Amino acid sequence: MTATIGMAVIGAGYWGPNLIRNAMATDAIDVRWLCDLDLERARSVLGRYSTVTATDSYDAVLDDPAVHAVAIATPAASHFPLAMAALDAGKHVLVEKPLTASLDDGRKLVQAAQDRGLVLMCDHTYCYTSAVQELRRLVQGGGLGEIQFVDSVRINLGLVQPDVNVLWDLAPHDLAILDYLMPAGVSVVAVAAHGADPIGHGLACVGYLTLRLSTGAMAHVHVNWLSPIKIRTMVVGGSCRTVVWDDMNPSQRLSVYDRGVDRLDPEDLGPDDRKQMRISYRSGDMVAPALREQEALRVMMTEFASSILEGRTPATDGSAGIRVMEVLEAAERSLLTGGTFVDMEVVR
Amino acid sequence: MTATIGMAVIGAGYWGPNLIRNAMATDAIDVRWLCDLDLERARSVLGRYSTVTATDSYDAVLDDPAVHAVAIATPAASHFPLAMAALDAGKHVLVEKPLTASLDDGRKLVQAAQDRGLVLMCDHTYCYTSAVQELRRLVQGGGLGEIQFVDSVRINLGLVQPDVNVLWDLAPHDLAILDYLMPAGVSVVAVAAHGADPIGHGLACVGYLTLRLSTGAMAHVHVNWLSPIKIRTMVVGGSCRTVVWDDMNPSQRLSVYDRGVDRLDPEDLGPDDRKQMRISYRSGDMVAPALREQEALRVMMTEFASSILEGRTPATDGSAGIRVMEVLEAAERSLLTGGTFVDMEVVR
Amino acid sequence: MTATIGMAVIGAGYWGPNLIRNAMATDAIDVRWLCDLDLERARSVLGRYSTVTATDSYDAVLDDPAVHAVAIATPAASHFPLAMAALDAGKHVLVEKPLTASLDDGRKLVQAAQDRGLVLMCDHTYCYTSAVQELRRLVQGGGLGEIQFVDSVRINLGLVQPDVNVLWDLAPHDLAILDYLMPAGVSVVAVAAHGADPIGHGLACVGYLTLRLSTGAMAHVHVNWLSPIKIRTMVVGGSCRTVVWDDMNPSQRLSVYDRGVDRLDPEDLGPDDRKQMRISYRSGDMVAPALREQEALRVMMTEFASSILEGRTPATDGSAGIRVMEVLEAAERSLLTGGTFVDMEVVR
Amino acid sequence: MTATIGMAVIGAGYWGPNLIRNAMATDAIDVRWLCDLDLERARSVLGRYSTVTATDSYDAVLDDPAVHAVAIATPAASHFPLAMAALDAGKHVLVEKPLTASLDDGRKLVQAAQDRGLVLMCDHTYCYTSAVQELRRLVQGGGLGEIQFVDSVRINLGLVQPDVNVLWDLAPHDLAILDYLMPAGVSVVAVAAHGADPIGHGLACVGYLTLRLSTGAMAHVHVNWLSPIKIRTMVVGGSCRTVVWDDMNPSQRLSVYDRGVDRLDPEDLGPDDRKQMRISYRSGDMVAPALREQEALRVMMTEFASSILEGRTPATDGSAGIRVMEVLEAAERSLLTGGTFVDMEVVR
Repeated sequence: MTATIGMAVIGAGYWGPNLIRNAMATDAIDVRWLCDLDLERARSVLGRYSTVTATDSYDAVLDDPAVHAVAIATPAASHFPLAMAALDAGKHVLVEKPLTASLDDGRKLVQAAQDRGLVLMCDHTYCYTSAVQELRRLVQGGGLGEIQFVDSVRINLGLVQPDVNVLWDLAPHDLAILDYLMPAGVSVVAVAAHGADPIGHGLACVGYLTLRLSTGAMAHVHVNWLSPIKIRTMVVGGSCRTVVWDDMNPSQRLSVYDRGVDRLDPEDLGPDDRKQMRISYRSGDMVAPALREQEALRVMMTEFASSILEGRTPATDGSAGIRVMEVLEAAERSLLTGGTFVDMEVVR
Repeated sequence: MTATIGMAVIGAGYWGPNLIRNAMATDAIDVRWLCDLDLERARSVLGRYSTVTATDSYDAVLDDPAVHAVAIATPAASHFPLAMAALDAGKHVLVEKPLTASLDDGRKLVQAAQDRGLVLMCDHTYCYTSAVQELRRLVQGGGLGEIQFVDSVRINLGLVQPDVNVLWDLAPHDLAILDYLMPAGVSVVAVAAHGADPIGHGLACVGYLTLRLSTGAMAHVHVNWLSPIKIRTMVVGGSCRTVVWDDMNPSQRLSVYDRGVDRLDPEDLGPDDRKQMRISYRSGDMVAPALREQEALRVMMTEFASSILEGRTPATDGSAGIRVMEVLEAAERSLLTGGTFVDMEVVR
Repeated sequence: MTATIGMAVIGAGYWGPNLIRNAMATDAIDVRWLCDLDLERARSVLGRYSTVTATDSYDAVLDDPAVHAVAIATPAASHFPLAMAALDAGKHVLVEKPLTASLDDGRKLVQAAQDRGLVLMCDHTYCYTSAVQELRRLVQGGGLGEIQFVDSVRINLGLVQPDVNVLWDLAPHDLAILDYLMPAGVSVVAVAAHGADPIGHGLACVGYLTLRLSTGAMAHVHVNWLSPIKIRTMVVGGSCRTVVWDDMNPSQRLSVYDRGVDRLDPEDLGPDDRKQMRISYRSGDMVAPALREQEALRVMMTEFASSILEGRTPATDGSAGIRVMEVLEAAERSLLTGGTFVDMEVVR
Repeated sequence: MTATIGMAVIGAGYWGPNLIRNAMATDAIDVRWLCDLDLERARSVLGRYSTVTATDSYDAVLDDPAVHAVAIATPAASHFPLAMAALDAGKHVLVEKPLTASLDDGRKLVQAAQDRGLVLMCDHTYCYTSAVQELRRLVQGGGLGEIQFVDSVRINLGLVQPDVNVLWDLAPHDLAILDYLMPAGVSVVAVAAHGADPIGHGLACVGYLTLRLSTGAMAHVHVNWLSPIKIRTMVVGGSCRTVVWDDMNPSQRLSVYDRGVDRLDPEDLGPDDRKQMRISYRSGDMVAPALREQEALRVMMTEFASSILEGRTPATDGSAGIRVMEVLEAAERSLLTGGTFVDMEVVR
């Protein structure tokens, strides 16, 4: 079929098996290879019943003319050379977050994909959950009013990474979601970061990010590898309504509150009204919108296939990946300078 | 009875009614006056069936020789003159948080009480909940091991205060609890603060505090007046165990997790072990200790009475109030300088 | 004021203190006496600061011409003589549940109050919570459609009563709520009950009630004194919407689900449609209505005062108490006959 | 390998795909066939990348000498002929619940398997969750003391079945778990059932089961297809401790409470102690045991393979399936006779 995309998945570690399972379940995709330097691991991931071919030769994959696209889930340091080689071989590319290990490399990839007319997509999985998609509709449709604050918590007993701190490991999720939610024209203007390494690991295991948005609102992210309980909550506070997204509550992930604080227009008040009287409180109903059950990774994979077939930019393209990395880069500088706000212009 | 303390409550606003109700329920206390500049309000708080006398004359209260102690629940700006006058009249003093509006005034009060041999106590109510008392036993008894991080969240749709920001309004609770929990010798060494005022109120309505402790650990506080949901959670992470205190879950306020990340001693490892292998994970049981049902304010009031009768320092004395204010003062300076860490020495 | 009702509270045990506190807070009521056979207990409940008079003489109370109404919170066996004496003395009467110890006595009270033109009210406290009042609006306003099932759970580690089983102790709450919710014309037609006494107490400590309603729907009640956790949940399932009332979740007591199962009209289906196809599923949003914060007992006391002042029947009058007792009486018979359904006609 | 069991999965409907996925992941099993009368459905379940063979010929499966065992997930009516044919062909058999459509057929299967020395296993999946396995250790190890009551709730917006009522559809789970938990020698002695069909479906959609156990304790099961919320909770109350299993709370499925009511030995009390004084209350800690993360179906499949290889009876064998069906049969009779208790001897 001309409308079927031949695909290879690169990397059979933690995330690769999820990519290959969802690619195999996507009608428009024909999975041909699973490639890993550790051939036994690739074979083990495929199992005893699969017709997909395991290989440890990336060249063989790129030489296969039936491969139109690669999905890369290898350690971050290898993202750039693998993706650039694929683009050079004329293949569309999907890359696990983070896009690359350095901003410069990321920008080169984006440019290369653009020059060659190929799709470069970031696997910002959370953006494809039904909760985030509904949240985006609420934010961008104006239902929340003006965004006043965002607070995101992502903590659990996590795998302490040997080579990156907790901000680079976990905050990309929050930043990718924030990037996806915000209306066009809204951007991060400054970032401050605090981190702590209470276990003597050598890198921060607990981290806090504070972001100033171009609207004047503040966003805050708390990530932590050491928490015995798992919390994944994002509160998006608006002038009209506020949404609480609790990803650990499958029966009620989104709660939209018609509650808040309003500041009354001073012109509507007499000269003697006290400051306190300029505030009013709303306490209306809460609505938990019905959400479709869907596996985010399947929706993401379908978006990758569709963007290739339709020759368009995917929802979370390379540029989205770059914007996330810019914030992390600024956070890194803030950590080194004792937590001061770093202007985003410095890293752009 | 010689063992009964005659008391007057000053202030019939938001908190005063709670103080008078609990004072009346305390055997060792004989409540004689409720004093407020607004006499009608004082009368209304007492109701139609009370034998306690309402007054708008603070002088009358201080002139009453049967009054041995006053409990002050007036706006912060009046704490200093009212408390100092009471000390000058030889009365013991209980003050609602914050102790005073300025650090200097607070220090004068502490000195004055000490000079006169009178009790000066801060109403740090949360310290008298059974949850915090159990938490303190766990921290100070060593059951948690070395404290690695503290994360406190106190957010809800709150009364936006006309004259103080959200840090001064809500964070005193978190800071008083932290002060009460920490073992002797542990102190705050630096503070950074971020705040936002998304509703154009003129003062921060959303605030974040980051505290560096003398042990190297980090504590973080999130306070917010604009949240439609009420969250009051404190996680105290230790090297042995971690406690989650969820004050909104009355059936399970404290959860003690035997879960965490351990760093193995490098001497126990061979030369070829990778960095990643130096970490091990514990995943044991969780215990929710049985807690006594008690009204914190009643326990606090009993502690006030006992400390007077026994001539000793109360658990949350004026100095505890000073330590809380010092952190807030440092936070204020950090806010003004863009969120940098402010050394606590600057405010001490 | 002529519009003030002089009141005496009878009984200073578990519930009496709540009644007197709320009566004292009700403007239209003037509390004059607290009466208990144990005078010291009455004095202790009033405390050291009250102008209300403690007494152990019920005669003195009834002889006081300024007493227009009595609120009775004594053991069930004494409800009938105390209430009848009060009615004979021309006083309005509020009685804690259950109305009386026997159905016959209850009916005599209702008749006596009616003959004398006096208010006889049952303290069915839960009916005055904002949750139940909103639930009633939903049921009676038709928002739920036809009621299909009701399931109520009321379990906790309760005080094992020496003289009544768990059905008589706890189920009156559920039955009073059900009586209050149901639209006019809907009644209980049969009752089955199962009970167990696993601790050898002599009376059932675990109980289940199954009620057949006149509409064909089924209601079920589970009460249990031995449960270590406290659950108070009622699900009211309707053909249009279903409400879950979780009284242990103060931030979201009511959840109204636009979810359910619809049976399609067979006339709309072709002859070959299978049985399974006659069912469709709705999965819409959930709404948690904003509820006023109110103390139910205060609202109940105001209703008592208003019904006296306005010369009208209160919302939970003696007849409501009778209907609750009739179900309990039928349940008792079902227990004795091995759990068969007992027709309500037998006890009416 | 001689230690590998050749397997065929029969039925590619709702449950079959789960069976085949877990069989494929089990080392000791070699999956050879997926058989369904609808060949396209079988092919679709296998997908485009599988080496397993789809077939619509059960004969071909049974004729394959490399097939040692079949796993049957077809409609209940076909369980008996398919399983009996497999046993006749010398194959071990795993059957989805319920074992068969009638008790007689079930008993014939058990006898046939026994006669031929073949394994006959029921897929009582829940018994292989780590929660139920821990619960069993607690019950059978005596940690709970004497079992006093069991209360199980399994409600959600379920698929209304065209041919069985909600008791036959959902209660087998609760009954299989109960059968697995109870110590040897404890059995069900009588069953009462209530059901309602508020949507005019023709079969009960809401059901309640009450079981009298041989120890005198009572067990109760509530199943419901019409509930908008999903509740899966089982409380096992013991004289020493009580366990709450909440399957919808993955972070704390089991909570073991050291709380309860004790009846004091009358010999320890003086002659004047009132009945009420013979009760004491325990209010100790709660422990949530750490549970292994495991897919129950994988554990079940491993047990099937192990029991074949080791020539032993599996944990949930055909007799367990028979015991579950006997309770359902008694429940059916109780439904028809208005909810009276039916003695289990009648159906044995």
